[in-house]
Amino acid sequence: MEKIGKLIVGSGESSADMRYATGLSTPDAFLWGANDRRSVAVLSPLEFDRARSQAKDDVELMPESELGGADRVERIVRLAELLEVNGFIVPADFPLRLADELRKAGLILRPAGEGSFFPEREFKAPAEVELIVSALRAAEAGVARAAKVLENASVAADGAIVYDGEPLTSERLRAEIDTELLRHGTLPTGTICAGGSQGACPHNVGSGVLYANSPIVMDVFPRSSVSGYWGDLTRTMLKGRAPEIVRRAYRAVREARELAKTLIRPGAVPEDIHRAASDVLERHGFHTGRNDGGDFGFFHGLGHGVGLEIHEAPRLSLRNRSPLRGGEIITVEPGLYYPEWGGIRLEDMVYVVPDGGCRCLTGIGDFLEIP
Amino acid sequence: MEKIGKLIVGSGESSADMRYATGLSTPDAFLWGANDRRSVAVLSPLEFDRARSQAKDDVELMPESELGGADRVERIVRLAELLEVNGFIVPADFPLRLADELRKAGLILRPAGEGSFFPEREFKAPAEVELIVSALRAAEAGVARAAKVLENASVAADGAIVYDGEPLTSERLRAEIDTELLRHGTLPTGTICAGGSQGACPHNVGSGVLYANSPIVMDVFPRSSVSGYWGDLTRTMLKGRAPEIVRRAYRAVREARELAKTLIRPGAVPEDIHRAASDVLERHGFHTGRNDGGDFGFFHGLGHGVGLEIHEAPRLSLRNRSPLRGGEIITVEPGLYYPEWGGIRLEDMVYVVPDGGCRCLTGIGDFLEIP
Repeated sequence: MEKIGKLIVGSGESSADMRYATGLSTPDAFLWGANDRRSVAVLSPLEFDRARSQAKDDVELMPESELGGADRVERIVRLAELLEVNGFIVPADFPLRLADELRKAGLILRPAGEGSFFPEREFKAPAEVELIVSALRAAEAGVARAAKVLENASVAADGAIVYDGEPLTSERLRAEIDTELLRHGTLPTGTICAGGSQGACPHNVGSGVLYANSPIVMDVFPRSSVSGYWGDLTRTMLKGRAPEIVRRAYRAVREARELAKTLIRPGAVPEDIHRAASDVLERHGFHTGRNDGGDFGFFHGLGHGVGLEIHEAPRLSLRNRSPLRGGEIITVEPGLYYPEWGGIRLEDMVYVVPDGGCRCLTGIGDFLEIP
Repeated sequence: MEKIGKLIVGSGESSADMRYATGLSTPDAFLWGANDRRSVAVLSPLEFDRARSQAKDDVELMPESELGGADRVERIVRLAELLEVNGFIVPADFPLRLADELRKAGLILRPAGEGSFFPEREFKAPAEVELIVSALRAAEAGVARAAKVLENASVAADGAIVYDGEPLTSERLRAEIDTELLRHGTLPTGTICAGGSQGACPHNVGSGVLYANSPIVMDVFPRSSVSGYWGDLTRTMLKGRAPEIVRRAYRAVREARELAKTLIRPGAVPEDIHRAASDVLERHGFHTGRNDGGDFGFFHGLGHGVGLEIHEAPRLSLRNRSPLRGGEIITVEPGLYYPEWGGIRLEDMVYVVPDGGCRCLTGIGDFLEIP
């Protein structure tokens, strides 16, 4: 008879599923297996002590020596015997080589759909909401620091922003933000500080000298070095005065974000929310399309879930028609991108309240012009 | 007839093989395939522009739209047709779910051994040596900053180190080091600052107040945010005066490291080098074993390869009898750990010179006591 458990092979640091299952943040890969009664993590002696203080209450910790087995395949076969199963559901990204070896050893292995190994990860417990908010606060401190730098800066005759006696670069502004993230117990990962036309490409992290009167997109997404949970925040600001087109785009993006927030609630369909935000931008005269210079307008998803991964379910996009259920934490981040003048993106995070509506978790306001 | 190419599905940020194949650091997953004549990366429009400036010379860049195919499986089937192959060798950690789908679609998929998809990654080109040294210099700046902090600190009546008017904690010292890493264009990942008995556990990152006259293990391993290459450096130091046992352990560990460096050369067997270092520690009276308190003495590998991954081939350990060949970059990091007084680890990086011997890449000296 077929009896199927669950299995993860990975490190707590790189596998969000492993972190979720065990609470452990170990840098080295280990085994976790479960059936409907037991949840067992198998650890090397090097990790055992630390694991005892970190592990979730319902996880049994077992030293490798107790489980036995000469190599990883043998250990997993023994783990299956211990759990009285003859196969496992595994995450979609379970490593193929090991899977082939385990199947050869007679185990059934069934990969889950992308991101659906623990579907419950999508719905956050109160303690998780707090951890995410705490990472978000670090991001806010980073953005506040960037605003302070722009405030204390001056502008040279050629329009370059000058700070600390030198032209201010994206690299320097990023280092100022990232230093603040570290001070708040989080790790910076790929902070975006993209000015002018660089900001028109949502993935450009930004490089070189920044200029006044031109928008700087700052996308800051730190991960707590203790909890592993992420925060995500984008603001767009500039030193000096915004050109009229930038000011108009900023207002449109903000209106789109605020409208989307009024629509987010249990039962709402992500595609509809995305479309409503997109309509606001169109109504303000900002069109989306593609030409020789690439994509322009609003051409990415409106938002995504955040938790132990920076991008996780659910997506707020044209491709998602599964209604929200309550408990999700999602970003709301409309943007407008035009190579002629750059980009505007404004990103808040919200918690979908099970009883109805949503609560904005972001605690920092919007500001475009820094005098 | 069987014709097998190579395939990677992953992001340049998280897959070292992908970064090595293409030179791209994109955060989103994409496809790369090759046969014996062509090397092709298939990218979404969002990534295309950036890719053009980053990609290695021999890589053809192809937009997803040109390849065609409605989903990832169809695109990979088309990529196989384009490359005139009916299957692929893939990295050991290729995701199982996708692999099952591709096999169902008729493709042969053969996972390579762990870390052996590109065996040539083990042997560094001169340009790679430079990139690794540059990341190592950032680590050195971090350790130098920590020494400066200890120098400027004082000691309270209870022995706590005091800095900036407050008891100095592991967290604060780590933030000082990590800030320096950021300033040098690298990302900190899990900097260890473990004092006293915490240092006796090699994986303990350290927390709480640090005390004088007690060793602090600092293991600093930054990754260049531009190149993706890592550096790795460990120093152990203390504020004040070292107890006699600590001084003796320090001397023994340093002698073990220096002896190991004289043995590293093409043709040398990693197991023999590890054993020789271990013998030095024993000769100084520092034994290795296990009791109720856990492992003590020297109970981890002597070193590991460093490149686009922080831990890669070859290992300097008791389990590796494959002779070095020249071109490897490896760490040499003997250590001694005793719960009674803590840990000492001293780590340099060396380049195995193809013509013979090795060159030490680390440019910072050893210092135990900071007055």
